[in-house]
Amino acid sequence: MPFKPTDYLPYDFANRRHIGPSPSEMEAMLKVVGAQSLSALIDDTLPASIRQAEPLAFGKPKSEREFLHFMRGVAKKNKVLTSLIGQGYHGTVTPPAIQRNILENPAWYTAYTPYQPEISQGRLEALLNYQTMVSDLTGLEIANASLLDEATAAAEAMTMAQRVAKSKAMAFFVDENCHPQNIAVIQTRAAPLGIEVIVAAPEALEADKVFAAVFQYPGTHGHLTDFTAQMTALHDAQAVGIVIADPMALCLLKEPGAMGADIAVGSTQRFGVPLGYGGPHAAYMACRDGFKRAMPGRLVGVSIDARGNRAYRLSLQTREQHIRREKATSNVCTAQALLAVMASFYAVFHGPEGLRAIAQRIHRKAVRLARGLEAAGFTIEPKAFFDTITVEVGPLQRAVMKSAVDEGVNLRAVGTTRVGITVDEVTRPETIEAVWRAFGIARQDSDLTPEYRLPDALLRQSDFLSHDVFHMNRAETEMMRYMRRLADRDLALDRAMIPLGSCTMKLNSAAEMMPISWPELADLHPFVPTDQAAGYAEMISDLSAKLCQITGYAAFSMQPNSGAQGEYAGLLTIAAYHKAQGQGHRNICLIPVSAHGTNPASAQMVGWKVVPVKAAENGDIDLDDFRAKAEKYADTLAGCMITYPSTHGVFEETVKEVCTITHAQGGQVYIDGANMNAMVGLSRPGDLGGDVSHLNLHKTFAIPHGGGGPGMGPIGVKAHLVPYLPGHPATGGTEGPVSAAPYGSASILAISWAYCLMMGGDGLTQATRVAILNANYIASRLKGAYQVLYNGPTGRVAHECILDVRPFADSAGVTVDDIAKRLIDCGFHAPTMSWPVAGTLMVEPTESETKAELDRFCDALLAIRAEIRAIEDGQMDATNNPLKHAPHTVEDLVGAWERPYSREQGCFPPGAFRVDKYWPPVNRVDNVWGDRHLVCTCPPMSDYAEAAE
Amino acid sequence: MPFKPTDYLPYDFANRRHIGPSPSEMEAMLKVVGAQSLSALIDDTLPASIRQAEPLAFGKPKSEREFLHFMRGVAKKNKVLTSLIGQGYHGTVTPPAIQRNILENPAWYTAYTPYQPEISQGRLEALLNYQTMVSDLTGLEIANASLLDEATAAAEAMTMAQRVAKSKAMAFFVDENCHPQNIAVIQTRAAPLGIEVIVAAPEALEADKVFAAVFQYPGTHGHLTDFTAQMTALHDAQAVGIVIADPMALCLLKEPGAMGADIAVGSTQRFGVPLGYGGPHAAYMACRDGFKRAMPGRLVGVSIDARGNRAYRLSLQTREQHIRREKATSNVCTAQALLAVMASFYAVFHGPEGLRAIAQRIHRKAVRLARGLEAAGFTIEPKAFFDTITVEVGPLQRAVMKSAVDEGVNLRAVGTTRVGITVDEVTRPETIEAVWRAFGIARQDSDLTPEYRLPDALLRQSDFLSHDVFHMNRAETEMMRYMRRLADRDLALDRAMIPLGSCTMKLNSAAEMMPISWPELADLHPFVPTDQAAGYAEMISDLSAKLCQITGYAAFSMQPNSGAQGEYAGLLTIAAYHKAQGQGHRNICLIPVSAHGTNPASAQMVGWKVVPVKAAENGDIDLDDFRAKAEKYADTLAGCMITYPSTHGVFEETVKEVCTITHAQGGQVYIDGANMNAMVGLSRPGDLGGDVSHLNLHKTFAIPHGGGGPGMGPIGVKAHLVPYLPGHPATGGTEGPVSAAPYGSASILAISWAYCLMMGGDGLTQATRVAILNANYIASRLKGAYQVLYNGPTGRVAHECILDVRPFADSAGVTVDDIAKRLIDCGFHAPTMSWPVAGTLMVEPTESETKAELDRFCDALLAIRAEIRAIEDGQMDATNNPLKHAPHTVEDLVGAWERPYSREQGCFPPGAFRVDKYWPPVNRVDNVWGDRHLVCTCPPMSDYAEAAE
Repeated sequence: MPFKPTDYLPYDFANRRHIGPSPSEMEAMLKVVGAQSLSALIDDTLPASIRQAEPLAFGKPKSEREFLHFMRGVAKKNKVLTSLIGQGYHGTVTPPAIQRNILENPAWYTAYTPYQPEISQGRLEALLNYQTMVSDLTGLEIANASLLDEATAAAEAMTMAQRVAKSKAMAFFVDENCHPQNIAVIQTRAAPLGIEVIVAAPEALEADKVFAAVFQYPGTHGHLTDFTAQMTALHDAQAVGIVIADPMALCLLKEPGAMGADIAVGSTQRFGVPLGYGGPHAAYMACRDGFKRAMPGRLVGVSIDARGNRAYRLSLQTREQHIRREKATSNVCTAQALLAVMASFYAVFHGPEGLRAIAQRIHRKAVRLARGLEAAGFTIEPKAFFDTITVEVGPLQRAVMKSAVDEGVNLRAVGTTRVGITVDEVTRPETIEAVWRAFGIARQDSDLTPEYRLPDALLRQSDFLSHDVFHMNRAETEMMRYMRRLADRDLALDRAMIPLGSCTMKLNSAAEMMPISWPELADLHPFVPTDQAAGYAEMISDLSAKLCQITGYAAFSMQPNSGAQGEYAGLLTIAAYHKAQGQGHRNICLIPVSAHGTNPASAQMVGWKVVPVKAAENGDIDLDDFRAKAEKYADTLAGCMITYPSTHGVFEETVKEVCTITHAQGGQVYIDGANMNAMVGLSRPGDLGGDVSHLNLHKTFAIPHGGGGPGMGPIGVKAHLVPYLPGHPATGGTEGPVSAAPYGSASILAISWAYCLMMGGDGLTQATRVAILNANYIASRLKGAYQVLYNGPTGRVAHECILDVRPFADSAGVTVDDIAKRLIDCGFHAPTMSWPVAGTLMVEPTESETKAELDRFCDALLAIRAEIRAIEDGQMDATNNPLKHAPHTVEDLVGAWERPYSREQGCFPPGAFRVDKYWPPVNRVDNVWGDRHLVCTCPPMSDYAEAAE
Repeated sequence: MPFKPTDYLPYDFANRRHIGPSPSEMEAMLKVVGAQSLSALIDDTLPASIRQAEPLAFGKPKSEREFLHFMRGVAKKNKVLTSLIGQGYHGTVTPPAIQRNILENPAWYTAYTPYQPEISQGRLEALLNYQTMVSDLTGLEIANASLLDEATAAAEAMTMAQRVAKSKAMAFFVDENCHPQNIAVIQTRAAPLGIEVIVAAPEALEADKVFAAVFQYPGTHGHLTDFTAQMTALHDAQAVGIVIADPMALCLLKEPGAMGADIAVGSTQRFGVPLGYGGPHAAYMACRDGFKRAMPGRLVGVSIDARGNRAYRLSLQTREQHIRREKATSNVCTAQALLAVMASFYAVFHGPEGLRAIAQRIHRKAVRLARGLEAAGFTIEPKAFFDTITVEVGPLQRAVMKSAVDEGVNLRAVGTTRVGITVDEVTRPETIEAVWRAFGIARQDSDLTPEYRLPDALLRQSDFLSHDVFHMNRAETEMMRYMRRLADRDLALDRAMIPLGSCTMKLNSAAEMMPISWPELADLHPFVPTDQAAGYAEMISDLSAKLCQITGYAAFSMQPNSGAQGEYAGLLTIAAYHKAQGQGHRNICLIPVSAHGTNPASAQMVGWKVVPVKAAENGDIDLDDFRAKAEKYADTLAGCMITYPSTHGVFEETVKEVCTITHAQGGQVYIDGANMNAMVGLSRPGDLGGDVSHLNLHKTFAIPHGGGGPGMGPIGVKAHLVPYLPGHPATGGTEGPVSAAPYGSASILAISWAYCLMMGGDGLTQATRVAILNANYIASRLKGAYQVLYNGPTGRVAHECILDVRPFADSAGVTVDDIAKRLIDCGFHAPTMSWPVAGTLMVEPTESETKAELDRFCDALLAIRAEIRAIEDGQMDATNNPLKHAPHTVEDLVGAWERPYSREQGCFPPGAFRVDKYWPPVNRVDNVWGDRHLVCTCPPMSDYAEAAE
């Protein structure tokens, strides 16, 4: 019959595209887990007491086409003018080949952070290129693999400087020529740490009164200063010198290293990364070699694999917050990998000659602009500049700004009588003429003799980007193939499940990704007048409303652009609230021992003291201990930080009681939203008693992980906390900002909004249910082979499960590492290793994986268990076996094979595809070797030749 | 110094992005070829007599950003209304995952035709899915891998029917309800072949007077007819029955096979392929099993590889025009592979249930529309319909059409008093209401009871798409991974040079590809009013002007959408000219024996007799023979077809004389533009004496090959031929059309335009020079190892070179096939095999390949030569050696290795990447086995299981 009723949408999304298992697969899976129905399973798993009362009501979900049509309408509400605002954000050309082959390619954007180096050699190489680029441009030995944005990088530099400075002064000097958002974020960060911030002109530096000082180069109004004298003075005072430098300017100008700077930070946005109304972009940090162990963020380094071949991996991980916990003074654990990769390819595409030429052209445009203004009698400042000038216009500031807007150009208001203009790579002759017209000047180019306005003494003397990778043949064919080769070395979601506990590696759909490439979203400067960003305003407002409904909070701030930054912003909000209540002394934070390492690190950052709370036998919070400590610190309790469902993947029934106890003692409750994928539509942190939560939009709300960033960590708060949310110099508010841009990485909010709009309330809730089903299915299938830690009281897990592999160390000498690497042979990224319990694997399949993929994964783990049993039974050698030699590479196959198991068994264990086998490019990577022989920039080509021999 | 003058553009294209070798690489290469300079090399290669007088003057080339900015402006001149015009073109939803992962992914769009099956298993599988889909939907046993468009497919069906029909009648019946462009293209095709075309109502068929008949289903005005009676009558008369069927309608309606049809054709555009103002789209053809050897086009089939594993490859290639030459009655050698792949994935994405639901929804919308019109008193035709109705409006036709346009909707004018309306997958409720308003009707939906208007007798009774691939889990994650797995099996330009002689596999840049995805280009129906396509008009006009300047012709027709179709259109133009001069009897066509097989086939199609011309010893045209034959046929000489530079890759000095001789005898000269990549900017076919040429925009002008289509073959003509260029029912003209759409595959013209705009005249000319340098560099490096056939008089080759490997058959038992397969081990697609000379390899590197890639290729060929020598010297076994076992797969490595050479030597010959090695998914494919056991639809899964065992 042609008209059997059907609810099939033309190209529906939520119902079947996002959620992995088909209805019939779900039926089969429910049988395996022993549940009557999906509802019954959820009833088993989620205590009735914590279920939300009303279902999410988001209206009819949009199909992909409907969404894209709707989104085009919203995008058109943004007006794309030419912004010459500067202030750390610049027009740039994203080479189309980079846009298509990196930004829009799931092989790059769906990858995870490169913690498993064997399946991450491609992006590790790209990030090493990035570090080399930063190191070369700044003239400092060590650079990390990116930070969130320039302002937070500057704040990180401040705290890092405090760690390394021998000076015991407690003040920090900030150049008044820093961008306002840099100053503001530094101030926000400094206050709870008790650091006094002195903002003044560079000449006013009193080096002996500070532990460090930071200078902007070029200054926010275009000034070019040689900070060598300041650096010398600082060093004499055993203090640390920091320069915030524009990498484009460094192509022509003396580098911070040559001035004696110890640390340099800045944004690489103008290296081909779209503006995106504020982000995401990659900030950089570089430092002198001696400070490398104090540097926050990820550091890619060079090591060797089991065959002695060169291999990349993350270095010095013991510095990081997940190891240091309470000792950490930074909670940074996100990079902006995807954007750093784009910036590094921009440098590879142009090479030093190209970058220098681009910088020259920018400067020439600025000179032409300035000369036109000067010829018309305007006074411009400074006399020497790179790309930025300010013009004195007296009372006509508003008139000129408006006139410029009429010409399609945004300028910057400086003070009340000046106008700032910053030109960039995309400024065209017509743009300069439009600016002149805004000043009432007709086109005039009588004198075209070349001229430059850079101070001779500040011209760069040193070479940069001398490594071969920056001197490749730059034909697009070659570049395209290089990007493809690197992509193919890595295993991302576009090839296999990434079952990382707590990381929620779900589908990032193509439709969700499309709008971020549209000019109406990509080409907006974060500080444009609000009437030019009406589309963004609509998106942010509606997404906030939806997140409020999902969480039970009253308002959201989109500013934090990582989960850890969300935690920090949330605690700041609580601290500000306490202060407003006259309770500013409250500084004790209760944190369960099982918490993510960022929790205590964030508490440290707001100046709180961390009091750990014990875990009960079953992994739950020890309620007695919690109560006792809350009572003990009743007068000073600032609050507690808990994760729900717990980091052990269990819905603890006691959560409400924990909140009640905290509130009873005057504390506020921070509920970490890392595990929201187990809650959306079923339970709301706000209802449980939470006062603040951050959401990881890059986990729960479909923003891709980008190979290690971007992330987005907006925070939701109860009504009483709304006045204390982060403010921003550009948008107001009583509190200081935590990010450089008012809405963080605004452009990727479109991904999460798309996800909500296409899933609808029912779809989001169903996703949660299926995420729980998928996790329980894995737990059921592995029963008997692996011990699952921390079931709930009904024997169910939440959306993830912890496999206890510790017994195998004794029984077979097999470590969690061996299992993780053996899974690579099976074609999988490893689950989360040794967290939250050392020696275990935490598995989170998410709702997006199909039954077939879950089965492939379970088959692989069961086969690995059989291999372990063979060792236990003495049938297999304890040191010469497939687990110890994992992962297997083509090199193993080509060479002599003298192992007690077959090539077939080594390379094609259950789970591995036959024709479509993923081959890791290196054997197991030696981490210790790499840390001992630390190299964090591209080795010279001669080294490669050696390694190949 | 910061201001050393530089000509580096912000992101320039022509100068360094498109052309492979860098300036310093070119210097090194010129040394190897022994030329003083690039100019000197060109002077050596191109005889002065054929050089063009003036350089190309295209103005300043645009950078990528400038081009994209400019193109957005042009695109905006197109107005995107909702088109309900129908007539074979329909709105459709391209799933974003397909757009991103297929259409915009170089792994798919830069691939070549899958003639080398071992490196083409991915797209072969996708095309087999396509054939299975077509076969199922039409109910016919065999389907090919797509044809150019529905109208040409119908014309092909006519000539195929003539080949297979036992009836000796010379007339062909055409249902008057066929789309006008289908009728017109059939008429164009029939005339020169002496076929009488009878256009009448289906009921008027007199089966004994025709060899075949074609019917449209549904008819162009929406009629649904069961053609079973006609099929029976035709079969009784030993004639052939053809149905042109809409595949979407077939999801609900009785299939042609069930009516007894012998052949079915149609367009799969509405299966997710954008309108693109006419194309490219994939047409299909299916037939009963007995006719398969008569079917034109490519046919993917199932075979086995050297290990007995299942492998796909093109079947029955001996049917094709490059083998049949003068005997061919079709010149089809292009498919629309990329679009067929998209359509097949659309079917995989939706499965039979989804397709049926989409078809149902379309029908429901049509019913709703009709009921609203009927309720308002309008008379609609027909009473039973699928998606198309016509409404009688008397003298108000223009008013209603205009009113609809004001509502944002294009309708179709039918006759002078009726309006046609066709709804589709993307029609929204608001669209239907807008149509009602255009008819003066307010919204009205009083009666919402379901209703359908399909004739009960025509409801489909059979299942379709029962193969497992159409029943995969359809979550996007699974679909994305399936597309990635297939892509990874293939070797395309994004990983390695494809040095195919005569195929010009050059860079298809990301910037060039971007505009085709823009709605302003993608969503235009080919028959919209011209004022809605002003952007297209500007693009076509400017591109034509540039091509005229490049070729020396007076005008271009963009209609032919393949090279072979260009030849055919060009000869038709000549024939029409002769006729107009009262010389319609001229029907002799001189063609050198070395010509591409399409040349004689095209001549056959216009009813000409082919007279072959001998080749001289050196491969050139034998001028004496040419002159003798021209004189012999002086009274009947229609013209000649030559290729320049010759198919042997040489610039023959005699070309002008050939033209003079032809003209002297009253003939016209067709110069095949296949090798224009050796001429652009240096020499113009129009200046040499050519009257007509086609250009392969998918070779010379950067349109990607798409894994075997799309192509574009516009023709340029001298002024005297302009009046005889192809016309079209939609745009007028005195001659008939050769394609369904007036401008062929209009949307991809944007790629060629982008290429011209970004290269500029100098860039295009430099590309030609470097293409010649690259070919000569390869010839020089291989000197001594391989004999290069057919140098020019100065010892230079043009843009390609022929390597003579015939001697190795005797000396070592090594065939051209062995070398081609061994090159796969080295990570290369083979050069063109056995054409134009059997047993040779023709190599065309194009300008886009860098010196490093050319060297990698030469190193591989030299190493292969060394292996051959080892056989010659008796150091290696003649049958058990790396050449005979090539290509090597992972299966070879895993299994037992009992060969007289090492695994290392087998798998990693010079040229092969180590870490980034491309592994073919199958060993050498057995073509003969496949042709003997012909299977051209997806085998049942049980078969796969067997093969795996």
